[in-house]
Amino acid sequence: MAVDGTEQRALQYEQTLMYGRYTQELGVYAKEEAARIREDGRHRRSVSDRGPPLKLLEYEKGRCVRCRICAVHCQRFLMSRVGEDWIFLILLGLVMALVSFVMDFCIALLLQAQKWMYGGLDSNVILQYLAWVTYPVVLISFSAGFTHIVAPQAAGSGIPEMKTILRGVVLKEYLTLKTFVAKVVGLTCALGSGLPLGKEGPFVHIASLCAALLCKFMSFFGGIYENESRNIEMLAAACAVGVGCCFAAPIGGVLFSIEVTSTFFAVRNYWRGFFAATFSAFIFRVLAVWNRDEETITALFKTRFRLDFPFDLQELPAFAVIGIASGFGGALFVFLNRLIVQFMRKQKTINKFLMKKRLLYPALVTLLISTLTFPPGFGQFMAGQLTQKETLVSFFDNRTWTKQGMAEDFNYDSHSAAWKHPQANVFVILVVFIVMKFWMSALATTLPVPCGAFMPVFVIGAAFGRLVGESMAAWFPEGINTDGTIYPIVPGGYAVVGAAALSGAVTHTVSTAVIVFELTGQISHILPIMIAVILANAVAQSLQPSIYDSIIRIKKLPYLPELGWGHHEKYNIRVEDIMVRNVRYITLNSTYRDLHEILMIGNLKTVALVESAESMILLGSIERAQLQALLTQHLSRERRLEFIRDRVDAERKRVSVVSTPSSEEGGQKVNHEVRFQISTEESSFTPARPSSPKPLKPALKKTSAAEKNIEIPTSDSGIGLKNLLCARPQTDAMEREVQLQADLID
Amino acid sequence: MAVDGTEQRALQYEQTLMYGRYTQELGVYAKEEAARIREDGRHRRSVSDRGPPLKLLEYEKGRCVRCRICAVHCQRFLMSRVGEDWIFLILLGLVMALVSFVMDFCIALLLQAQKWMYGGLDSNVILQYLAWVTYPVVLISFSAGFTHIVAPQAAGSGIPEMKTILRGVVLKEYLTLKTFVAKVVGLTCALGSGLPLGKEGPFVHIASLCAALLCKFMSFFGGIYENESRNIEMLAAACAVGVGCCFAAPIGGVLFSIEVTSTFFAVRNYWRGFFAATFSAFIFRVLAVWNRDEETITALFKTRFRLDFPFDLQELPAFAVIGIASGFGGALFVFLNRLIVQFMRKQKTINKFLMKKRLLYPALVTLLISTLTFPPGFGQFMAGQLTQKETLVSFFDNRTWTKQGMAEDFNYDSHSAAWKHPQANVFVILVVFIVMKFWMSALATTLPVPCGAFMPVFVIGAAFGRLVGESMAAWFPEGINTDGTIYPIVPGGYAVVGAAALSGAVTHTVSTAVIVFELTGQISHILPIMIAVILANAVAQSLQPSIYDSIIRIKKLPYLPELGWGHHEKYNIRVEDIMVRNVRYITLNSTYRDLHEILMIGNLKTVALVESAESMILLGSIERAQLQALLTQHLSRERRLEFIRDRVDAERKRVSVVSTPSSEEGGQKVNHEVRFQISTEESSFTPARPSSPKPLKPALKKTSAAEKNIEIPTSDSGIGLKNLLCARPQTDAMEREVQLQADLID
Repeated sequence: MAVDGTEQRALQYEQTLMYGRYTQELGVYAKEEAARIREDGRHRRSVSDRGPPLKLLEYEKGRCVRCRICAVHCQRFLMSRVGEDWIFLILLGLVMALVSFVMDFCIALLLQAQKWMYGGLDSNVILQYLAWVTYPVVLISFSAGFTHIVAPQAAGSGIPEMKTILRGVVLKEYLTLKTFVAKVVGLTCALGSGLPLGKEGPFVHIASLCAALLCKFMSFFGGIYENESRNIEMLAAACAVGVGCCFAAPIGGVLFSIEVTSTFFAVRNYWRGFFAATFSAFIFRVLAVWNRDEETITALFKTRFRLDFPFDLQELPAFAVIGIASGFGGALFVFLNRLIVQFMRKQKTINKFLMKKRLLYPALVTLLISTLTFPPGFGQFMAGQLTQKETLVSFFDNRTWTKQGMAEDFNYDSHSAAWKHPQANVFVILVVFIVMKFWMSALATTLPVPCGAFMPVFVIGAAFGRLVGESMAAWFPEGINTDGTIYPIVPGGYAVVGAAALSGAVTHTVSTAVIVFELTGQISHILPIMIAVILANAVAQSLQPSIYDSIIRIKKLPYLPELGWGHHEKYNIRVEDIMVRNVRYITLNSTYRDLHEILMIGNLKTVALVESAESMILLGSIERAQLQALLTQHLSRERRLEFIRDRVDAERKRVSVVSTPSSEEGGQKVNHEVRFQISTEESSFTPARPSSPKPLKPALKKTSAAEKNIEIPTSDSGIGLKNLLCARPQTDAMEREVQLQADLID
Repeated sequence: MAVDGTEQRALQYEQTLMYGRYTQELGVYAKEEAARIREDGRHRRSVSDRGPPLKLLEYEKGRCVRCRICAVHCQRFLMSRVGEDWIFLILLGLVMALVSFVMDFCIALLLQAQKWMYGGLDSNVILQYLAWVTYPVVLISFSAGFTHIVAPQAAGSGIPEMKTILRGVVLKEYLTLKTFVAKVVGLTCALGSGLPLGKEGPFVHIASLCAALLCKFMSFFGGIYENESRNIEMLAAACAVGVGCCFAAPIGGVLFSIEVTSTFFAVRNYWRGFFAATFSAFIFRVLAVWNRDEETITALFKTRFRLDFPFDLQELPAFAVIGIASGFGGALFVFLNRLIVQFMRKQKTINKFLMKKRLLYPALVTLLISTLTFPPGFGQFMAGQLTQKETLVSFFDNRTWTKQGMAEDFNYDSHSAAWKHPQANVFVILVVFIVMKFWMSALATTLPVPCGAFMPVFVIGAAFGRLVGESMAAWFPEGINTDGTIYPIVPGGYAVVGAAALSGAVTHTVSTAVIVFELTGQISHILPIMIAVILANAVAQSLQPSIYDSIIRIKKLPYLPELGWGHHEKYNIRVEDIMVRNVRYITLNSTYRDLHEILMIGNLKTVALVESAESMILLGSIERAQLQALLTQHLSRERRLEFIRDRVDAERKRVSVVSTPSSEEGGQKVNHEVRFQISTEESSFTPARPSSPKPLKPALKKTSAAEKNIEIPTSDSGIGLKNLLCARPQTDAMEREVQLQADLID
């Protein structure tokens, strides 16, 4: 019963949160809520008092009395602490670190399996090709199918939805256990296929799912987890955890989640994000150490650039060029992504075919991409055999590839060797890689599987940076001369700058710079990276929305767009410049003619209800359809027939009791005085709820007159709106009006 | 005239912003504002049209027509761009970088001069001591005196004031040119004295001053700089610039300024902070390169810890211990600082004496501190000859000090040599250093000179970390064994952790971690630092407020305290739990008796005015004193005398015109019907202001009945409040009520 009550309340919360829908009067709601919480407090107190009385226990005798006293103390302490934030955050961090680690482990296994198959079949190229291609097609198809069957909401990145949820809209189905399972399984398979897909966006969603589920679970222990403003704060922390445990980047995670999901950020939430993300990143890396993958806790993509002279001042223009070009590239990526989605939607014939066989589109795209990356085929021109991680490691390598005399270095590291081709130049291979990966990533991120765009973009950015770096190294083989000492150029530093700049441009964030520092474990290139990221943002933000805003627009999620960067003319726009002045309204004394006219106009979805034309105090709004239904209910053919039937019955009774000669005349007279009976039954679509007898607020007091069932003759063709409203209990009608107030804007 | 108008408007803005003081009705104000901005827009458009007509110019002939066309284009472009945010931010960054660089240069010169004097007088210890002691005393006295004379607001850190200003309170005198000059000169002298003082807090203030002055300067070019919400956004960016160009730490600067100054942070401001701080840090470091101090752009306190194995997992407990101890230390520091201030305030006899001679207290404190740091004296036990910067460099050194066999390493670096003492152990010296510096810093930061507490605390933290690190290195001389390879312990890493943890504990921020990464140029210790900082914050926040909140409380600045970390019981406090229910009020129909009763109670500062006891619609509030004044005005002895005089005059006239026998009876009758005349003159304390004829809002409409001067007989001892209110023009009275509404809460 207690659980049922909790669930019902949770439902109420969610309904309350829903954009502009208030299913109960706010005043009444707040009072009930306060009463409930006080009740809960008392209940909890009594629960904690229910334990064995400690003082009595101390007088008992026996061996294990001390142990029992201690246990009771511990139990009480734990019960009092379980509601604390930090317990929740530690649990969240722990769970997410485990999820991230296990998922990484599975993905690595899946990728290894593909390589093993490919390696084992090296006798026959056709078999090799079939194995290379079938494997990802199967995985992606499974991922798409599983997601579609279990929870279609799990497809895609999840950041746009989290952005919407954190603004107060309840997308309920996005935070369920089903979605969690679908997202985790789908993401593992999708990433295991080797397509250019990312883990970061879905991880933000998974962490939020985890937090929401944990909140539900924890609410068994204490009532605080039902406070929904607190739950939203926890969701914000969870977003940080998502990024934090995905990249082992706690600071970058907090900043990225702030930039991506918030408009206004409450600084008191700051520590929550830091705490949970740090704990999560710590556990994530400690697991790697325990698993003997690493010797100690280090960065995910550790670089070894020299510390004493990271870059020369004269290299700064090259970094700036990377930033500006990345800005254009990022805008192009977002544009291309949207174009593909819109193209797929518009082509109805293709679309119908593909939609019928839901798995065909993913399978075809996967087939195309994996065919192109087949290592003995075209893949040899774009290092097709490397996984995303290996590619990044090779890009961040601190040795240059273009020096001819250092071929033995290449053998040292198998990853870098992939970029050396007997026929083609390194530059050509890099350009091919960038171009191919660019459209492949834009295409792959449109698949209906759980996937993010951050990591593919990051890799493309790193490739572009590497290209510029290698060019610089080829241009200045001896390094840029400063006073005396010669420092050769480090193309890996350019790759880091490029990765940060392009991912920053696509997501419209500056914190990718911090993520890059934490990913590489080096901060020596801080100023070039910051300059490139800011330039990339400046260019990209003036051309296109961010990838997340783009998806929000495509999916038409309920989200208010933000004011752009420094458009200072927007500071001078006043409400009066955009507001509608001649709003159609009805008053409490509107006649049938007024209602009819308003309904005849037909372009209004909702109608405002004001007290009177003089006071213009807004009481609420009523939906057009509802108004029509009410009118029909009162003036329908059935009602008229029923009325006539009643009259005839009454007539008959009168006739049977007293037989008068003027019965027909009396009938005429009654007909002239047609009155409508007011039914107080609840309409079918109103769920039973304890109706409160209190008035809504002082301003609404005057409408309490409507509670009286006044019968007004129709002879003057005016039905008081009051009659319509009191067709159902007063509070219910009021509630509905308030509830629909926000819809008026549509 | 235009300038005067601008100033007047600026004044109005500031008055509007002032905590709960509205000098004009908001509605009227908003309308005027909108009209003004539209006017400005038109004006500006006409100004831009005033330039030479471009099309006509093209038809002109002559050699330099092209140049002129080009110049006009450029001019227009520049004029249209000068209002853009990024121009402002670049200017701000540039100016602050220059200020920071020049100030650092001067401070270095001043410190060198002291060393030079000390070194030159090595023949005589007494002379040496006098020189060592006199120099800082003179500098600090000058700094205190200069600050006191030019702008006393420049004393202290400035962060508490910025925190208050960013919440919307206008502390006008804190953002003037005078304060800027006093702060810059005072800070340079104070830091040049060698006392344990910091540059960071004052730099936040200086940057804000700079932004405010720049805003004023830029408002000559365009009207946007008068938008005050934008100016507050710019101030927030300026705070980031302050930290950014002080430590060359753009990211840490942004985060620190967010944590320290904001409660709710608008994410759209984020890029402003990043942009300006990055630019500023860039210029600051480029200036160092151009000045040949550095070979290229690197971190301020560059460390050279090994990258491949930064620390072992088994060292983590030591890092956690540093964090927890730093938490206690930070709380103790804040407590000590407040204790000193309160002690100085309470000791009235000392205080009087010191206050008379304002410079005596700073001089005495300086004398004490510099005597103790005198290198041949006690200073040899605490590395007295090192400046703050040299101390930090020696702490962050990656070599251990305790290995006995490596004495030749010590000669290599003169800074580390200072920690080697023939008689004392390194540990003893470090402990003495920590203890002495701790109280010295707490004492020095109470001086009335521009100074911050961040850097001294940072140094103490580094010393503590080094102490723990050296202890660990002595405990495990071979390093903590992992599988095979032996990695010795790096005490410098512990110093970094300690510095971040202690400064985080004192300021209650997590972003000191990021500042440390940027200061040292290495991020390899990210997880230990994050863990230590979070633990330190958890401990410190549960014991004491942050140093800035502590100063806010001491200075009694108008600032609402925040809810603490995770005090979840606060989520259940409702307004009804703290609100006063039986508010005394007067209605529009209150009688004289009601007023008298309310005034007799005497504990109310303001009285609420409601429409009627039934509706309870709040119309505003009226000050007790004002109510009394109004009552006096109407029922004073003068009024009664005047009334009698008037009556006598009228009587006389009547007597002179028509002499009737019943004159005395008529007089009696008139006396029975005493009526009060209503004067419509303005009371003396109401400044003349254009009165608006519009009613305040629809809810107030009904009070317009009060505009009629109804005369009510006093025989029923009831004066309608309406009469009191219309003693002055209606709008004025209304305005006053609205204005005082906020005061009711006091």
